Amino acid sequence: MSVAATPVTESTSTGESRSAHRIVDCDVHPYFSDGLKDLVPYLPEAIRYRLGLHHTETWLNQTGAFQFRLPTNDMYINMSMRIRGDAARDGEVPGSNPAFVAEHLFDTHGIDRGILTGANTAGIGAVRDPDIAAALASAWNDWISERWLDADERYRGSILVAPQDPVKAAAEIHRVADRPGFVQVQLPPLDILMGERHWYPMYEAAVEHGLPVAVHPSATESIFQRAPMLGGVPTYYLEWHVGLTIPNQSNVLSLVAHGVFERFPTMKYVLVEGGFAWAIDLLWRLDRDWAALRAEVPWVKRPPSEYVFEHVRFTTQPFYEPAKREHLVAVLDALRAEETLMFSSDYPHWDFDDPSRALKLVPKEARERIYAGNAIELYGSRLD
Amino acid sequence: MSVAATPVTESTSTGESRSAHRIVDCDVHPYFSDGLKDLVPYLPEAIRYRLGLHHTETWLNQTGAFQFRLPTNDMYINMSMRIRGDAARDGEVPGSNPAFVAEHLFDTHGIDRGILTGANTAGIGAVRDPDIAAALASAWNDWISERWLDADERYRGSILVAPQDPVKAAAEIHRVADRPGFVQVQLPPLDILMGERHWYPMYEAAVEHGLPVAVHPSATESIFQRAPMLGGVPTYYLEWHVGLTIPNQSNVLSLVAHGVFERFPTMKYVLVEGGFAWAIDLLWRLDRDWAALRAEVPWVKRPPSEYVFEHVRFTTQPFYEPAKREHLVAVLDALRAEETLMFSSDYPHWDFDDPSRALKLVPKEARERIYAGNAIELYGSRLD
Repeated sequence: MSVAATPVTESTSTGESRSAHRIVDCDVHPYFSDGLKDLVPYLPEAIRYRLGLHHTETWLNQTGAFQFRLPTNDMYINMSMRIRGDAARDGEVPGSNPAFVAEHLFDTHGIDRGILTGANTAGIGAVRDPDIAAALASAWNDWISERWLDADERYRGSILVAPQDPVKAAAEIHRVADRPGFVQVQLPPLDILMGERHWYPMYEAAVEHGLPVAVHPSATESIFQRAPMLGGVPTYYLEWHVGLTIPNQSNVLSLVAHGVFERFPTMKYVLVEGGFAWAIDLLWRLDRDWAALRAEVPWVKRPPSEYVFEHVRFTTQPFYEPAKREHLVAVLDALRAEETLMFSSDYPHWDFDDPSRALKLVPKEARERIYAGNAIELYGSRLD
Repeated sequence: MSVAATPVTESTSTGESRSAHRIVDCDVHPYFSDGLKDLVPYLPEAIRYRLGLHHTETWLNQTGAFQFRLPTNDMYINMSMRIRGDAARDGEVPGSNPAFVAEHLFDTHGIDRGILTGANTAGIGAVRDPDIAAALASAWNDWISERWLDADERYRGSILVAPQDPVKAAAEIHRVADRPGFVQVQLPPLDILMGERHWYPMYEAAVEHGLPVAVHPSATESIFQRAPMLGGVPTYYLEWHVGLTIPNQSNVLSLVAHGVFERFPTMKYVLVEGGFAWAIDLLWRLDRDWAALRAEVPWVKRPPSEYVFEHVRFTTQPFYEPAKREHLVAVLDALRAEETLMFSSDYPHWDFDDPSRALKLVPKEARERIYAGNAIELYGSRLD
């Protein structure tokens, strides 16, 4: 979607259509069809050259350091494959064709809005060169706009920034924020916890435009130097994948302890694909410790759980399947899921949650808000 | 307690006395009365010299690298102080006088057995020199034996090892295992997750003597190079302390994924002072992922939660104080607390849990097992 294009919101910007959204999917992954070459039209020539994207000699593939690769997870191999093979027409990369995905995901499951989060670029926080990272983020945002948001009015975008340079990242938010179709800022994880001052220029820019901030696993956790550790370095994909809650736990602690929600009282934080049941432990511990230790962090003026319930939103996928439903119901109640939880499918990933079945263990009265109501409240008219 | 001493178990080794334990406290911290000098009688002369313990010039205190200090937490300052000031007679270091602690903790609260875990030495895993670390661990074990276990028959000890050298650590377990009064092996955390092969010689030795393995926060997390990270590097004590669950989460994932409980089917793992409600999230995720990904870890033959319920034990302190009791009750039920949870006070630390009040939110029928039954089952005749 170019800046000059007619906003897709126009035709559906009435109160009726907005409240009519039945399902908002908060985690849909758009994939490149030809790797980084997809971004070439959006990259300055100097950067294309710097990345080695002009090389065509195939024998170079046998060696390293000739052509840039985005950091990603090549060590923890998912034996179930990472991507649903059926997320594409024959010969296409799964998840790479906007029209097919709209049909396959939205039409099949009655999804009214799908928020795109970084896929190939999720690990951009692990790129060492801050200018390369910034150029790639800008190119990605332009590509999302033209290739995806223009293709179907049900898509919404996340503004990806390279957090290595906070000032450049804030400038990117300002550059893209008013383009139709973007609903939030996506911050790839660094090894700097998210309560630290490093992030504030980005928060300030997001808040200025009324944009929530979202984080999503980077697929570089514990592999690249600047990616957050998962408590330790896992050996297996199973450990890595289950442990993806851990960076979120550390980040929520950091956000609360640094008083980020006092400093940015309108900011909202979306934790995508990082679980939520862990928060029952973290908030109980945090409220208890805060009562005793608040003199250390006097800017934390209320019990920490109040900030989390007000400012943090969780997404559902991969949803829990406990042996006893009552245990999940207690967790949902303790974490006020009817206000804090938003549906996500993680399409086209291997552990996709089908919306027709994902919430079957959730009390009926909370489902509507989780499927759509909480997202509509959070993203407001940007979902119209 | 010297090797030749009469075992304290003799007088109380009947079934009656054992089942009569009302409260077993699984986390009591013995402190040095004069710093590392307490260990001097138990250290070889070459090591004493190597550590600079012979220096007496006080001006040297203004500089570094003249006298060894055990790694500990000097960066995350607890504004409530770390230790209860009333855990000592006037002029003594709190927690350093075995007779006073026995009276102050055991007599006051009706505690029948108290298991000592490392205090000053908790961070021994962060010592770079493996031989120094091993010598300190041995000296600590001898000091515990003579100064504490000999002082009151209610004390029990943990065999501390320096995990930097797994073979030496196993030798230390063999050296101390049959001394009366020791009930488990305490493994200080490294930055090597506990499912990895590095640890197996220690596990083998522990299992050979029927000793459970216990882990406890090291107070060096994220400060020293070889200490496990807490997802990220925290800024405040509040973050650090609440996040002490994270190394346990990573370690449980690692133990399960590496099949440690298949390899050592009789091994028991005690997670001291690291919370337990987090396991509701971790086990739900792990069981679901395992069902899809088990081909990666074929040695994990059963749903991961089964291994955890069978082999892992949690301690209570710091106990949760949720707004709604029913949420805690659901967590206790989901985690089978009546089999997996053991009382601990963490005496003499600032957030000590008084046994007369700690379990007030726990269903009555589970309390007896948490106060004593689960510990009696785990430690067996070593508690007699």
